[in-house]
Amino acid sequence: MAQLIADKKDIEFVLFEQFKTEEEILSSDVFSEFNKKTVEMIISEARKLALDEILPLQKLSDAGCVFDQGKVTVPKEFHKVYKNFCEGGWLSMPDKAEWGGQGMPEIVSKAANEFFYGACNSFMLYNMLTHGAARLIESFGTEEQKKQCLENMYSGKWSGTMLLTEPEAGSDVGALTTSAKKNADGTYSISGSKIFISGGEQDMVENIIHPVLARIEGAPEGTRGISLFYVPKFRINPDGSLGEFNDVVCTGIEEKMGLHGNCTCSLTLGGKGNCIGTLIGEENKGMAAMFQMMNEARQMVGLQGHANASAAYMYALDYARQRKQTKRIQDPAGTAPASIIEHPDVKRQLLLMKSYVDGMRSLIYYNAMCQDKRHLAKTKEEKDYYFAMEEVLTPIIKGYFTDKSFEVCSHAIQVYGGYGYIEEYPVAQLLRDARIFMIYEGTNGIQSIDLIGRKLGMKDGKPFMNFLEEIRLTVEEASKIDELKPMCEAMTKFLEYYGETALDFARKLKGDEVLNAFSFSFPFLEATGDLSIAWMLLSRAKAAYPLIGKKKKTDPFYLGQVNTARFFIKTILPVSLGKLASIENCDRAVTLMEDSFYWGK
Amino acid sequence: MAQLIADKKDIEFVLFEQFKTEEEILSSDVFSEFNKKTVEMIISEARKLALDEILPLQKLSDAGCVFDQGKVTVPKEFHKVYKNFCEGGWLSMPDKAEWGGQGMPEIVSKAANEFFYGACNSFMLYNMLTHGAARLIESFGTEEQKKQCLENMYSGKWSGTMLLTEPEAGSDVGALTTSAKKNADGTYSISGSKIFISGGEQDMVENIIHPVLARIEGAPEGTRGISLFYVPKFRINPDGSLGEFNDVVCTGIEEKMGLHGNCTCSLTLGGKGNCIGTLIGEENKGMAAMFQMMNEARQMVGLQGHANASAAYMYALDYARQRKQTKRIQDPAGTAPASIIEHPDVKRQLLLMKSYVDGMRSLIYYNAMCQDKRHLAKTKEEKDYYFAMEEVLTPIIKGYFTDKSFEVCSHAIQVYGGYGYIEEYPVAQLLRDARIFMIYEGTNGIQSIDLIGRKLGMKDGKPFMNFLEEIRLTVEEASKIDELKPMCEAMTKFLEYYGETALDFARKLKGDEVLNAFSFSFPFLEATGDLSIAWMLLSRAKAAYPLIGKKKKTDPFYLGQVNTARFFIKTILPVSLGKLASIENCDRAVTLMEDSFYWGK
Repeated sequence: MAQLIADKKDIEFVLFEQFKTEEEILSSDVFSEFNKKTVEMIISEARKLALDEILPLQKLSDAGCVFDQGKVTVPKEFHKVYKNFCEGGWLSMPDKAEWGGQGMPEIVSKAANEFFYGACNSFMLYNMLTHGAARLIESFGTEEQKKQCLENMYSGKWSGTMLLTEPEAGSDVGALTTSAKKNADGTYSISGSKIFISGGEQDMVENIIHPVLARIEGAPEGTRGISLFYVPKFRINPDGSLGEFNDVVCTGIEEKMGLHGNCTCSLTLGGKGNCIGTLIGEENKGMAAMFQMMNEARQMVGLQGHANASAAYMYALDYARQRKQTKRIQDPAGTAPASIIEHPDVKRQLLLMKSYVDGMRSLIYYNAMCQDKRHLAKTKEEKDYYFAMEEVLTPIIKGYFTDKSFEVCSHAIQVYGGYGYIEEYPVAQLLRDARIFMIYEGTNGIQSIDLIGRKLGMKDGKPFMNFLEEIRLTVEEASKIDELKPMCEAMTKFLEYYGETALDFARKLKGDEVLNAFSFSFPFLEATGDLSIAWMLLSRAKAAYPLIGKKKKTDPFYLGQVNTARFFIKTILPVSLGKLASIENCDRAVTLMEDSFYWGK
Repeated sequence: MAQLIADKKDIEFVLFEQFKTEEEILSSDVFSEFNKKTVEMIISEARKLALDEILPLQKLSDAGCVFDQGKVTVPKEFHKVYKNFCEGGWLSMPDKAEWGGQGMPEIVSKAANEFFYGACNSFMLYNMLTHGAARLIESFGTEEQKKQCLENMYSGKWSGTMLLTEPEAGSDVGALTTSAKKNADGTYSISGSKIFISGGEQDMVENIIHPVLARIEGAPEGTRGISLFYVPKFRINPDGSLGEFNDVVCTGIEEKMGLHGNCTCSLTLGGKGNCIGTLIGEENKGMAAMFQMMNEARQMVGLQGHANASAAYMYALDYARQRKQTKRIQDPAGTAPASIIEHPDVKRQLLLMKSYVDGMRSLIYYNAMCQDKRHLAKTKEEKDYYFAMEEVLTPIIKGYFTDKSFEVCSHAIQVYGGYGYIEEYPVAQLLRDARIFMIYEGTNGIQSIDLIGRKLGMKDGKPFMNFLEEIRLTVEEASKIDELKPMCEAMTKFLEYYGETALDFARKLKGDEVLNAFSFSFPFLEATGDLSIAWMLLSRAKAAYPLIGKKKKTDPFYLGQVNTARFFIKTILPVSLGKLASIENCDRAVTLMEDSFYWGK
């Protein structure tokens, strides 16, 4: 039977064969409760919950949430599933037992989450933000704040959000005007309006904890004057019971292109002068703290994109196997219908989709493994190594993957043909849902600026060179297998050109060419993303090749791995070489383009 | 004030400066009623109608049509605008006076239509199909059929459709099962079910003429046994009045991702054994006739895509000028907000959008000019030359432009940031509407197969070589301007490589590599499309350059033309070179990919 959402065999391949999670992660004492068998069981359970309960929400979620007089109701079917999801402890898979978490490795949590997010992203976004907000408070909050909310949040009894955006402060967070006035008792009175708040008000939980960015009266302009506050929807009494309403009023929800099951709220804080918050971390250091949550959120948005793409790919693959149309090339008279998966252009499209889905999955798990290894690391040096690797990978996972997710969903529609455009079939919704991933938690343009402006030159470029060195090592290993040598040669050629281009590019970023170089931030992100996918696919081929011929039943799977790497490296990477040439040219046309040249007035 | 839908100055530039329509087309006796002034007036009137009446329908159209007991009602606001549109003679701009047409040059008609389609594609699709069906009947119908319907169709009193698709016969038209049984009086009784019929039933017109593909009982299988029939919704009495209902029953409409204002109908013909049609053209020659309509439709779908992209670009351009956010690169402290059009990555995105929109506009007008020149041609040789050029351009205009249209709409959303995802703003709808253009009238995959399978080798490759020769001539002309020489050199290099690759590719299509080559049909279409855009932008630069310095006011416009060509040729074409390298490799990975390699079961 056709698999839905994600290919289970592929997930197990990545966990146990590509990344050897058993030996690399599970063998540690820290994870003594987990072994291969328990992990397989976790994945199976997650898959079952996703298929049986969360996936049926997806179609229903499209009808959207309802706003009425300050209250938001989510689709009614969400409630029961939310309860089951939370009771199963799925919200806090990788978190500490101290706060009610399950203490799982990140890589296992990602694998399970892939099924959940791919089943219904708008349902999961509530959980994603709750988890992110809880982590933020765990890292920067006071003991009192932690005791108040963490168990309640990790259990899903309360939810969490992230209050950054204002009408005039989107990408430019520093322009925000929400203010905080210090009270005699050390609390702050918060006042302002926030927009685009996912899950800012909803009816599945008893209370909502809002981490809020605001400016303390008299603080400097821009990002240097921003502080972070802990603002509950209902105040919390000393005994933990809920107190007075904290004057956080939802004034409306947005009508969007997709992701309708997740309400996007406008909130007014302190409209009646009665919104009280407490400081998280230090005054004027709010951005730094918020960035931790943002980084987790960015990685999770990458997962959202990947999961959506994987779901779309699985649907398209199944459809291409079912749908019969004449093979016109082999059979011009048109008398022998064949599954469209046999048609060359459909095959190509599916293989392109598979390349991205497989490559994204592997890099997301690789990144999760870096988190686990950082957690397990004995030395600061080692910790720094993995943390810096995550930092380099984050803009790729957010900025490149969500672009590719949208492309994969669009390919899925194309494979369905006219049916793909009809909402009765599942792929149109996946595309509509996926479009926001390219925007929220920092637009993909901002991700590209993060990559070249921060990550490329960070610590004298050491982490970035480590990233390239990891790729080189994979190529070196793979080249020991004769059959992979042609791919390795192409990769080596690409890596050399990429390295030169990156070095040259980094130089331009420091000189007179800086603005011009920034006009190539996005192409640079794209080339880096292409390289990352090629890397992961080669790493898969390397893991798969020795397994060919062991069991007849699984041979096609492993042959598929090798052939997918070949496709991407031989057919897509030459195009990426062209992207490098364009970046190397670094032509000044964009810089020269004045506002008036666009005309249109 | 910001312009909407399309840049009027740019349209006039293409008409009168790039393509010299006055000298090349209007000077002919055939078009003696038209001169530069009248054409400018036509464009102005079209623009006014589009902005004042059709554009307000766009938002309303999203609410969709209503189906109830076999009847479809379009949004009620459509009716009045439809009446005005038809009364203005806009439906039959390029058609013969004999049937009530306006006799305009095609190029002028395209310019006017650009405003209409960009204002509301779902409204215009009704007219597009009526026009296409009328043209089909004008070319292949009997005198009686023509007298019955042509004036009524060109005036918009009646509408037209196109009945090809059936549930099991989509891209594979030859699989259709609708049947026709010859009656004693020479008419045919039609019986079958059709789906995805745009405007198959609607309430703006008195009658609907359905050209229907069906198989006469006993005819061969596949496309060789398909005939074309003239099937009115209501039969027509000898005096022209409407007679009995012809048993064409609408059984439902589709819920789609976009284009909601245009109903997509399922129709059952002859469910009560009472659907009568008459033959259009010869028995079993239906496909050839239908292809004429299809070719016009494909060109018009290209225009739909372009018009949508142009509208999205104009919105994004205006938004980028209005929206202020800090320039973080120049101003890290974030104290001086600037229009986001000054941000390098936004500039790049807008310039990419402009490249596609400008290039598409020019090629669509160029193609229309070929139609006009064919019409004006004195010799068969000349007629054949232009007709063949249109044939080569059609899959590019349909298959590549609609892909780029979708991309441009997506960029527009990105420029809007979070607001782009909100349906209150106009760009999300444009993207949703645009997605179908890549599918209907032959998916873009099929366009790519048409390009390599039919157009590339047609008449020993002569028309394709003419296409390349036209490009070479533009490069030669442009290289007389010193400032354009670097672009011309890059173009020459590209053209040479493209020519070699195409030749090699054509050879592969004839040999053992045929299936493998077909797996590169789409990349080949993409490279050809890139080349076409570069060609048109260089042609624009060539026309614009001598006009710089004439009037201070318009200098930025012309400088913008030159700089846009530079951007595309220096920054995008290197990537296309990479595409050529990939096609040249023609790796066998797609061909080797067996069904089971994709796994997923």
